[in-house]
Amino acid sequence: MAKTYIFWHKNPDTDTILSSIVYWEFLQSKWVDIEVVALWECNNETKFLLNKFWLTAPKIIDTLPAWSKIILVDHNEASQSIDNLNDFEIVWVIDHHKFWSFSTKSPLYIRSEALCSTCSVIYNIFKAEWYQISKTTASLMISAILSDSLLYKSPTTTDYDKKIVEELNKIAWISNIEEFAMDMFNAKSDLGDISIEDLIKIDYKEFDFNGTKAGIWVIETVNPTYSMNRKQEILKWLEEIKEKNSLDIVFLSIVDILKEKNITFVLWDKEKQVIKDIYGVDTFDNMADLGNILSRKKQVVPQFTEYFNK
Amino acid sequence: MAKTYIFWHKNPDTDTILSSIVYWEFLQSKWVDIEVVALWECNNETKFLLNKFWLTAPKIIDTLPAWSKIILVDHNEASQSIDNLNDFEIVWVIDHHKFWSFSTKSPLYIRSEALCSTCSVIYNIFKAEWYQISKTTASLMISAILSDSLLYKSPTTTDYDKKIVEELNKIAWISNIEEFAMDMFNAKSDLGDISIEDLIKIDYKEFDFNGTKAGIWVIETVNPTYSMNRKQEILKWLEEIKEKNSLDIVFLSIVDILKEKNITFVLWDKEKQVIKDIYGVDTFDNMADLGNILSRKKQVVPQFTEYFNK
Repeated sequence: MAKTYIFWHKNPDTDTILSSIVYWEFLQSKWVDIEVVALWECNNETKFLLNKFWLTAPKIIDTLPAWSKIILVDHNEASQSIDNLNDFEIVWVIDHHKFWSFSTKSPLYIRSEALCSTCSVIYNIFKAEWYQISKTTASLMISAILSDSLLYKSPTTTDYDKKIVEELNKIAWISNIEEFAMDMFNAKSDLGDISIEDLIKIDYKEFDFNGTKAGIWVIETVNPTYSMNRKQEILKWLEEIKEKNSLDIVFLSIVDILKEKNITFVLWDKEKQVIKDIYGVDTFDNMADLGNILSRKKQVVPQFTEYFNK
Repeated sequence: MAKTYIFWHKNPDTDTILSSIVYWEFLQSKWVDIEVVALWECNNETKFLLNKFWLTAPKIIDTLPAWSKIILVDHNEASQSIDNLNDFEIVWVIDHHKFWSFSTKSPLYIRSEALCSTCSVIYNIFKAEWYQISKTTASLMISAILSDSLLYKSPTTTDYDKKIVEELNKIAWISNIEEFAMDMFNAKSDLGDISIEDLIKIDYKEFDFNGTKAGIWVIETVNPTYSMNRKQEILKWLEEIKEKNSLDIVFLSIVDILKEKNITFVLWDKEKQVIKDIYGVDTFDNMADLGNILSRKKQVVPQFTEYFNK
């Protein structure tokens, strides 16, 4: 029988990685032949967390054996997944994003909910199955929820997500949630001597908006100055990647987690017009002040989808 | 706020209709502004069951108000749903089929499992939420599972589906499950003076196999002679509908529930080749004996998908 692999999306964030790990742990308690694999490296925030909880990230591999069965965590769009997605059989999806052009070969298991993080969806699965959540697992799940919700500041956050953190913290016993989140965010923002190539891998997703190919980066940080100071370098790089990946439009948002502000780098006239039409905001010096637009999932993708479907 | 509507798929079978009704009942106990609507009429089996349990089918309506939110039950493919699906916001999907080109505007709630009926998926939702299932609801859910699994004969049936029926029957108290199922199947097969137009509406679905448009009918019956005797009439009608709906291939299977046999009407050379290539079966006199191929979901659609993806 073909082996089953569970993995996270390209340019992974903390939620997708920790969700894969805790869900794999859960499935292991039921199945035999399942393996969590890393197709893309962890970011600094996730590395900090794995380190904190004495875990090692799965080894990065390039490809999966032919005929593998796969479990997609925190994504469903082909552009965000393994390159040759169609060669495999998707048997399971755990997600909290909109679905896009999603096709499978056979009936499958899907759990999707409009909650702030995939770990929130997983919490509901665990709860329904009376799964015994360990202290470490509860800590990882709390980390993922705080990370994806930007400590509840993202508009994707529901009251239920907050309640889940409360419930999980009865197991995890994290003494100060705010402090814990700030440590995570500092680790995420610790861009230190990071190269532009690595900076822009941090949280990047490609979308197909009714035929318009878009690349959208979000750099969540407590230290926006670092990226702002490298503006010219970033713009130059955006031009290059736009051509290389045959994208029609590209945007890179720098989200100040503390001040809840979004400054987006806007390249050319085409991009300027889109930002003007959707958000009514003018671009000066290749920068648009999008105010408190914090969530790509809720405040960018649906608006772009509607705009390009017109 | 836009109203939410829950509805079943085109050419509805018993599972899709009863799933819509019991899930609506469940959502009503939580939400306010939700309505179950019928966009297509019930078949004879479902009418028999609604009648047996003193229920009336929802009134059939043609369209939904603009901006409605919708819940798709037992389907996710646009070709099987309301014509202007893209005009609405899909907020919820309960299904047990493969997914095909499925796109949404925003994150949403999806529950899908590879179980034999949508009512089995709904049972898991009810169980996780400790929902109090009434005697009538339990009877309807059992009916849907027996109908979609052809009294467990369909290869889509899992041991878990059988266990669900056992659990539900602790509430429903149906004294003889086999007898109950046979009454249902007799009602389904009671084609009586049904016209060809109505006969072929009973269980019809359209698929897009990598650009090849296919129309696939399945007539499940305890009395296959009725349809077999009308072969010439049916073939003539298949030709017409193939042209009218711009289909590339059409197949109509007559499934004998009792003998677990499938005779499929095969129109022209193109269809003959497909049947030969996929099942290794020759067609004589426009008929191919597919043996015990009982499930379109498990034994037809995945095989066609793979064949046309090559």
